[in-house]
Amino acid sequence: MGTLLTHATLATMEDGYGLRPDAALAMEMGKIVWIGATDAIPAAYAGYDSLHCEGRLVTPGLIDCHSHVVFAGDRAQEFEARLNGARYEDIARAGGGILSTVRATRAASEADLLAQSLPRVDMMAASGTTTVEIKSGYGLDIASEITMLRAARRIPGLRRMNVVTTHLAAHAIPPEYQGRADDYVDQVAIPSLHAAHSDGLIDAVDAFCETIAFTPAQVDRLFTAARHLDLPVKLHAEQLTNSEGAALAARHGALSADHLEHLSETGIAAMARSQTIAVILPGAYYTLRDTIPPPIARLRDAGIKMAIATDCNPGSSPMTSLPLAMNMACTLFRITPLEALLGTTIHAASALGLTDRGTLTIGKRSDICIWDANHPAELSYRIGATPLRHRIIGGVFDT
Amino acid sequence: MGTLLTHATLATMEDGYGLRPDAALAMEMGKIVWIGATDAIPAAYAGYDSLHCEGRLVTPGLIDCHSHVVFAGDRAQEFEARLNGARYEDIARAGGGILSTVRATRAASEADLLAQSLPRVDMMAASGTTTVEIKSGYGLDIASEITMLRAARRIPGLRRMNVVTTHLAAHAIPPEYQGRADDYVDQVAIPSLHAAHSDGLIDAVDAFCETIAFTPAQVDRLFTAARHLDLPVKLHAEQLTNSEGAALAARHGALSADHLEHLSETGIAAMARSQTIAVILPGAYYTLRDTIPPPIARLRDAGIKMAIATDCNPGSSPMTSLPLAMNMACTLFRITPLEALLGTTIHAASALGLTDRGTLTIGKRSDICIWDANHPAELSYRIGATPLRHRIIGGVFDT
Repeated sequence: MGTLLTHATLATMEDGYGLRPDAALAMEMGKIVWIGATDAIPAAYAGYDSLHCEGRLVTPGLIDCHSHVVFAGDRAQEFEARLNGARYEDIARAGGGILSTVRATRAASEADLLAQSLPRVDMMAASGTTTVEIKSGYGLDIASEITMLRAARRIPGLRRMNVVTTHLAAHAIPPEYQGRADDYVDQVAIPSLHAAHSDGLIDAVDAFCETIAFTPAQVDRLFTAARHLDLPVKLHAEQLTNSEGAALAARHGALSADHLEHLSETGIAAMARSQTIAVILPGAYYTLRDTIPPPIARLRDAGIKMAIATDCNPGSSPMTSLPLAMNMACTLFRITPLEALLGTTIHAASALGLTDRGTLTIGKRSDICIWDANHPAELSYRIGATPLRHRIIGGVFDT
Repeated sequence: MGTLLTHATLATMEDGYGLRPDAALAMEMGKIVWIGATDAIPAAYAGYDSLHCEGRLVTPGLIDCHSHVVFAGDRAQEFEARLNGARYEDIARAGGGILSTVRATRAASEADLLAQSLPRVDMMAASGTTTVEIKSGYGLDIASEITMLRAARRIPGLRRMNVVTTHLAAHAIPPEYQGRADDYVDQVAIPSLHAAHSDGLIDAVDAFCETIAFTPAQVDRLFTAARHLDLPVKLHAEQLTNSEGAALAARHGALSADHLEHLSETGIAAMARSQTIAVILPGAYYTLRDTIPPPIARLRDAGIKMAIATDCNPGSSPMTSLPLAMNMACTLFRITPLEALLGTTIHAASALGLTDRGTLTIGKRSDICIWDANHPAELSYRIGATPLRHRIIGGVFDT
């Protein structure tokens, strides 16, 4: 026996919004098994549990394809200190910035990390997220990176949320390796990658390619190791400066290149060739008061698919809501509401290498959101309000 | 019998945050009756219903002192059309913009208006708002303005939310008065003010002083009528251009001048003298992609108190969350987290002329929020996440 949604306005996200008014959808055993008109429901589904959607918008469950939601501590007081006039150097000297999160994360047990991260996962769920990618990258030593990944992998056992995990030991250079980034890659990033992989803890490998982080040559070394393990790669690329990271990622067949504010024409051409997804992260742009947006029109013209994510992290994007990220992508970057919803459904699935979700299609997972809305543009139009009525994962409604 | 909160981190908002760790608060008959240390609770309160706050942050209920939350229709498809390249003139020619909201609001019954507005009020409540100011201004004829105000006044009977209403017939010039703004003021704005006042429907009078709306002379005429009725005034001033509206409002002893992106030194001096509150509305600045922020440092230096509000409206600020407005005020305008919380508690109360709420003080209303947070800076630090644990109005918990 399954469940039937009737009198819905489906946005299937096949071929644009793929709007189907007065539609019905049947699900069974965690998958969508039938879609059609409400007045043409086959007799086979007559006995299914049925929900009358009263014309409400029904979309695929939202997919957050770039997050750092597992971490310990917060940076609220640093946020406050900066607004009270503290200079960046003062904060750094006082142990602030990313290293304060690294310190708190290293000090946390797996149980602590989970306890601190679950409220954020709950807020993501309340905004319609059904699948979230979670990166390591605040441990920066082998054991702590593994602890972060184990904590992330335990979430689906504790919360109704699908989780995909990404190894990101090459996120920052910890104090004990200052000035020795190559040693860090050889002694921590690559060994922790092997350890995490052999424990079955990761789905992909990411790095931060930037003047303040890792060079293209270092990233190339890490990505080569990843490919020997048959792991897909993705990259934090061209956020603050252009180091042709996107082109490097594309050469490795990357699933995605993320941020991209300073993406070059070379990078665009390389991404187009490799069908690498552009992951757009307006929360960090907003928080950092950046003024150079990613080249959206050029990405669009080049036929590069765009995904939108929260980048949920304690420093540059303490945000959990995908609809808010969609609104910011529209308002700050002039992405259209259609691109924004494609970017949190089917293109976000592609950015994670997942082909079993992201559209309302027979055979796909029954991860679904029902909204107190009539048209999909409403999800981007509101600033951070989330008119979520029901959230369904694998055919099961949240209570 | 009353209720007791124990083991709380109180932010009383008296003299800054007024933080009191390990504190307790007793409430009775809708008021705060005692505040002190958890280990010094008088025996008189021993039998009260008691909630152990486990160190959580407890603040006054949030006050949204500028909203247009009652309206019909939405503008999501206009938002989408604009992002798809439609020019402003095309949208206006197709009947879009504020006049589409006027058309939908005029066509709605009081019951329709309420039904469409209550979900937004619910979202405000879910973000911690306990008092909201609601303006008319989408009717623009006498009967429709009255209907909007009646709908707003019915909300507290249907939802646990305190409502203050403001007459804003001088919001825009309707099509039938194009080119005849003076006639509109004489034939609609002032007569609807008298009608609303004699029906007991308004607490204050507002207007939009701007090149595209009403001149200072027209506003002065309306404000003079308001003062004859002993009604306080406030003004949408200096949002798009400087017309010295703030100084005009100050001369009328206005409660607040709102927006203020183009506020002049003359306006600052006048507001300082009259103790007019500056209401800062980052949602509209963000949505309109404005680049000139209000002169926050000058306001601060002049000792002008600042409030922060959502400006919830279907065109320039479809936002319901005060914590999101606080985050935007910090990020976009460099307001501090302390100023942001003062601006949604005690200073927002002042902007509404209310002295019975806005701090945790003996004798004040027991409108209170309990947050899953440890420090008040967290409320501004997160981008639109609302860690609201409990909301209390007049001593009664939301269920």
